[in-house]
Amino acid sequence: MSNRLTEFQAYRKRMNDRIGEIDHLGVKRFMNLDTAAYEDGALPARQKEMLGLVASMVLRCNDCIDYHILQCVQAGWEDQELFEAFNVALVVGGSIIIPHLRHAVETLDMTRQSKDSDGK
Amino acid sequence: MSNRLTEFQAYRKRMNDRIGEIDHLGVKRFMNLDTAAYEDGALPARQKEMLGLVASMVLRCNDCIDYHILQCVQAGWEDQELFEAFNVALVVGGSIIIPHLRHAVETLDMTRQSKDSDGK
Amino acid sequence: MSNRLTEFQAYRKRMNDRIGEIDHLGVKRFMNLDTAAYEDGALPARQKEMLGLVASMVLRCNDCIDYHILQCVQAGWEDQELFEAFNVALVVGGSIIIPHLRHAVETLDMTRQSKDSDGK
Amino acid sequence: MSNRLTEFQAYRKRMNDRIGEIDHLGVKRFMNLDTAAYEDGALPARQKEMLGLVASMVLRCNDCIDYHILQCVQAGWEDQELFEAFNVALVVGGSIIIPHLRHAVETLDMTRQSKDSDGK
Amino acid sequence: MSNRLTEFQAYRKRMNDRIGEIDHLGVKRFMNLDTAAYEDGALPARQKEMLGLVASMVLRCNDCIDYHILQCVQAGWEDQELFEAFNVALVVGGSIIIPHLRHAVETLDMTRQSKDSDGK
Amino acid sequence: MSNRLTEFQAYRKRMNDRIGEIDHLGVKRFMNLDTAAYEDGALPARQKEMLGLVASMVLRCNDCIDYHILQCVQAGWEDQELFEAFNVALVVGGSIIIPHLRHAVETLDMTRQSKDSDGK
Repeated sequence: MSNRLTEFQAYRKRMNDRIGEIDHLGVKRFMNLDTAAYEDGALPARQKEMLGLVASMVLRCNDCIDYHILQCVQAGWEDQELFEAFNVALVVGGSIIIPHLRHAVETLDMTRQSKDSDGK
Repeated sequence: MSNRLTEFQAYRKRMNDRIGEIDHLGVKRFMNLDTAAYEDGALPARQKEMLGLVASMVLRCNDCIDYHILQCVQAGWEDQELFEAFNVALVVGGSIIIPHLRHAVETLDMTRQSKDSDGK
Repeated sequence: MSNRLTEFQAYRKRMNDRIGEIDHLGVKRFMNLDTAAYEDGALPARQKEMLGLVASMVLRCNDCIDYHILQCVQAGWEDQELFEAFNVALVVGGSIIIPHLRHAVETLDMTRQSKDSDGK
Repeated sequence: MSNRLTEFQAYRKRMNDRIGEIDHLGVKRFMNLDTAAYEDGALPARQKEMLGLVASMVLRCNDCIDYHILQCVQAGWEDQELFEAFNVALVVGGSIIIPHLRHAVETLDMTRQSKDSDGK
Repeated sequence: MSNRLTEFQAYRKRMNDRIGEIDHLGVKRFMNLDTAAYEDGALPARQKEMLGLVASMVLRCNDCIDYHILQCVQAGWEDQELFEAFNVALVVGGSIIIPHLRHAVETLDMTRQSKDSDGK
Repeated sequence: MSNRLTEFQAYRKRMNDRIGEIDHLGVKRFMNLDTAAYEDGALPARQKEMLGLVASMVLRCNDCIDYHILQCVQAGWEDQELFEAFNVALVVGGSIIIPHLRHAVETLDMTRQSKDSDGK
């Protein structure tokens, strides 16, 4: 996997571990609630990941976008389907989303390339 | 249908017509683009409506929430599925979403009641 | 208490009860987490209410502002202290906060008047 | 002038007066700074009002939109010019702006009608 | 031109080209709509660029700020005029805009220095 | 002090000085107002710094978070108290705050480590 994404994942893991050490009950419960929100239920997990992705795009959070793209790819969403989700985010959120669209497309490309090279 | 929703729909129609009269090419094209974003494509229309609903909730726009709930109900989404979408929006957006969750649940109830009474 | 605030509190209670009926585990846990975030801990409850108030003002949510002002008054904060919190929110959030400052001052006045008339 | 706008202006005046009574130095200075930001300088006042209008639209504050439309009309901006500003706000901010575009167009129409009837 | 801006422009071009390759009709139309929003019309292009700049500042998007500053400088806006626009954004958006004001001033300085050295 | 924070402080000082040179009366007054908002008054300065920190977290501004954490540590707030403030921000603002929580915890750790090594 490319540098930007591996760095993000290492930083994310390191700081999430550090947040765990803080041992604040409210924060820990929030983290669990966040994980649980994307598990299979009345809606399948993969659908919820796409909801999380669009929410992250319109709220313009690149780290959140990266996380949900990685999850969406793992959940089997195809590029054409993800582009449709990107388009909904773009229309809802406007041109202020464009820099995050660039970021999202780059992340998606990096993720596909990494999977290709992993597969060899 | 209940008063709040019928009033919203009448106001929405009246003002959208008025915006059409303004005849600004950019605005008209944006309106068309907005409609097109929720049509069947690589993702089915009903899925895009749910993406639009979650985007509207995290961006905290009650009129947009009402519009997408009406579309989601028409597209056949069940309450349990919509509650899951509400939950994703709540976890992503935090307690600041709660007033909009109240609004969304009230709108959903109104929509179901209206459909029940229409069916009689 | 004045009409606007009593109506808000009645609506809030009615819809929170309705949200409870929905019985979505994630949503219920979030509601509990939200309540717990303002309880005495390393910081006293009254301080957290003021943090919640300023967060609500900069995020521009009138219902949240009303809720936290009621809590802050009950927790014993004086007007001069609350005005200081309003000022921090105004400086951080800019003139876009002014309509919410008007709302907050009106709510605070209503709350004080209601307490005065209750005390007679 | 129509009811919605006269009510807004009366409420705005009443609460601004009340905020003045509070006599918080920081808040008073902010209010003065806000007024000064739209006075003639390196840019003419009318241009700054239009900047304030677009900022209010993308930040989705109806009271702020109403205030700046009233100022823009008084400053002599024509409808076609204001529609161009609305369009920039719509493209930058996305479909989440549409309910505020409806509000802005309605406010502009109310303002023009009021000026017409005043002129008779 | 300085490194930060040339890098941004190269990245922006590369990713916009990549987004073009994706060939999503909705996304392509949005991109065209975005370009068209800043062309001469009832308002001159240079005025619209300034509207886009203020919208970008209050929405706190550094890439958008950089893009519109480059356009504004090319459109002939003077520093004193741009500082006025920065000030409107600062007053509307509050102290949360200050980091973006720093970024904007740095970008403007870089752009002027680059033009000076190009002119030699 | 660690690199990221010293770099931020140097950049912040350099650009604030540059903004001072611009000599725009409105901007200068805003900067003064911002400083004054955190001075002792009806609320002590340390309390206002914590209000500023939570406002910065829910508005998701890393530079503002860093600034207020440095001020809060200097004002004598303990880690457990700051974690409570982080938790209020997390619950109000939702999972979109998590990347900023990571940043805040890292900044706090850096600040403590720097103070430890300064003290030797």
